[in-house]
Amino acid sequence: MAGEQKTWTGKAIVARDTLANQGWKMEEVTAREIGEDELLVELVASGICHTDIMCGSGSGNPDLFYYPRVLGHEGSGYVRATGAKVVVAKPGDAVLLSFDWCGHCESCEGGLPSLCYESMPLNFGNKAAFVSANSEDETEIAGKFFGQSSFARYSVAKQNSVVNVTDLVKSKEELQAFAPLGCGFQTGAGTVVNVAKATQKDSVAVLGLGGVGLSAIMAAKLSGCRTIVGIDRVDSRMELAKSLGATHVIDTSKLPDGKSVIEAVQEMCEGAGPAITIDTTGVPTLVKAAIEMTRKGGKIIQVGSTPPDFQVELPAFLFMNSGKAYMGAIEGNSISSEFIPKMIQWYRDGKFPFDKLVKLMPAEEFEKGIHEMHTGETVKPIITWS
Amino acid sequence: MAGEQKTWTGKAIVARDTLANQGWKMEEVTAREIGEDELLVELVASGICHTDIMCGSGSGNPDLFYYPRVLGHEGSGYVRATGAKVVVAKPGDAVLLSFDWCGHCESCEGGLPSLCYESMPLNFGNKAAFVSANSEDETEIAGKFFGQSSFARYSVAKQNSVVNVTDLVKSKEELQAFAPLGCGFQTGAGTVVNVAKATQKDSVAVLGLGGVGLSAIMAAKLSGCRTIVGIDRVDSRMELAKSLGATHVIDTSKLPDGKSVIEAVQEMCEGAGPAITIDTTGVPTLVKAAIEMTRKGGKIIQVGSTPPDFQVELPAFLFMNSGKAYMGAIEGNSISSEFIPKMIQWYRDGKFPFDKLVKLMPAEEFEKGIHEMHTGETVKPIITWS
Repeated sequence: MAGEQKTWTGKAIVARDTLANQGWKMEEVTAREIGEDELLVELVASGICHTDIMCGSGSGNPDLFYYPRVLGHEGSGYVRATGAKVVVAKPGDAVLLSFDWCGHCESCEGGLPSLCYESMPLNFGNKAAFVSANSEDETEIAGKFFGQSSFARYSVAKQNSVVNVTDLVKSKEELQAFAPLGCGFQTGAGTVVNVAKATQKDSVAVLGLGGVGLSAIMAAKLSGCRTIVGIDRVDSRMELAKSLGATHVIDTSKLPDGKSVIEAVQEMCEGAGPAITIDTTGVPTLVKAAIEMTRKGGKIIQVGSTPPDFQVELPAFLFMNSGKAYMGAIEGNSISSEFIPKMIQWYRDGKFPFDKLVKLMPAEEFEKGIHEMHTGETVKPIITWS
Repeated sequence: MAGEQKTWTGKAIVARDTLANQGWKMEEVTAREIGEDELLVELVASGICHTDIMCGSGSGNPDLFYYPRVLGHEGSGYVRATGAKVVVAKPGDAVLLSFDWCGHCESCEGGLPSLCYESMPLNFGNKAAFVSANSEDETEIAGKFFGQSSFARYSVAKQNSVVNVTDLVKSKEELQAFAPLGCGFQTGAGTVVNVAKATQKDSVAVLGLGGVGLSAIMAAKLSGCRTIVGIDRVDSRMELAKSLGATHVIDTSKLPDGKSVIEAVQEMCEGAGPAITIDTTGVPTLVKAAIEMTRKGGKIIQVGSTPPDFQVELPAFLFMNSGKAYMGAIEGNSISSEFIPKMIQWYRDGKFPFDKLVKLMPAEEFEKGIHEMHTGETVKPIITWS
């Protein structure tokens, strides 16, 4: 660290217990000293994602669920200090924060850092990064969630999680609105562009129209896909999906009697079904429907987290003859340092209007953001630090 | 049909009952008159494939299992007559016979004829094509298996099953040896080239070193794959696989105690496992191992037929996080009229020495061919008509 031993103290949302137990509290915390491959980032914003809520709501598995901790993994901010081996950015640079990766496993070396073999400990592991600013409480608070823990004014970020956007972002306000590019928007758009490699020949169906699903809709539109079907049960998402590029929408809460979502989608997709089906819901019945509705030779891409014990059952002989592929993808199999600048350029070109999905609010209102995400009122709440 | 109403009578292997019941007999049959999109082909050879044996061994499902019938779907020969709408070849042309497809469904129009929505009835359906040459027996004998039924000296072939190779084949002997290009060799090579799109960056594992598996090995070699692992339990296949391009082989009957095929393959493939795993066996334990051994982000391609009731179970959450893809493929997702000429060119260039896999024998010795395929003595028996 560059000489100075300045202490960085500021507010953070500390999960001391599950969200259901009202264990998430705004507190003053002090970030620990950074290591040689770490940066101290002053956050200006962080998107809220279902993965934050999941990881701050569970118990049982100590690798995933532990307290106290600071969550948040869609951060944006300015670098305030850098470790000795940091080359990605210097103090003052504007950065977006994304997932962490080791850099030397077969996945990372093969261009798939989101499938890093160290992904679980790096992104979800228990690593001390803060202490309470209350000097009587010496308990360490875990951080570096996704290498960043961006639900804090000041946080310790891992170099590999940092994407330097100094030359790409015009203002602090933009940097705030861009926060979810590092996870949710990248996941949706990357799934279409990097994983499915969608083209004009493809019909696409997207199950679940949250931030990930709507990003997938936008990416299908900019890929020129011939049919784009958005599927959800929240009425307000239908018009939004259409405004972002969906050629058809299905409100599953309003299907006519006796009509399945499978039939409805297949009718819209040339009678045969989508060539690319993206499930962002993780709901078992919808996963099964996704596999069924897809045309022969098509891809079903699992993006939404299913219940941990859910087994997908594929009748091997028939599935082989269908030529379908059931596949997983993480972060849209993106290399964040390449894909984030690409998304920003699409945004500048008017092809990726993700600003329609976000709603900014002060970090103190995080519970409101979570509530609005649950009701569906807000697609992507972004909490801001100031 | 061009004026003449010549009758084509010759020998055929007629399955009047299952193979186990010794129901396959060499008989004289007469091909029925061809329709407007059909050709009368004088066969010079036909490869024997496990699918012939499967379809001539079963009972119960009348869509798949019915008798009497003529099987055979890796035929080569010369055109003797053509229907009015036939443009693919004229009398005298040398042809290879491949699978049938409708030409107007979403799969066919989308460049995936092997996933044709009419594939089952077209390739497996009960369609009269012969009668016994014994005029007292008027029972119709089913043909057009894979649009060809090439276990006959003279057969009725569907235009879409015919690939004209007049300009690509030098002699009758070559045409005989090339017979399996239309199915087995295309399936193995096409899976690597068209489905997996293997490159130099990929490590490949192939489970099962029959005609399909060894064709996959050759295609992995010509694609420059960095590691190529062949897996079987027949000792004689090990050296053969190496001579065709395998960098490593595993004889599963000789694994050291306590060592699984999964560990063995992963060690050979950079510790992480193959990026492309092709199962040609359909054996449930090997299918499960194939899924497990594959590296993160890799593809498991099901090519071998599993037992009809076998379900592949994928733990959805973990599978998603692995970024793997489990997929089916048929005929290597090839367009035969494009892929067969490609394989012949590779053969001419010394890159696809499929002649090492074949053993020609007179059609009368078909039972010997089947026996040698079962024992593993012969990879690809080809019966010849003369």
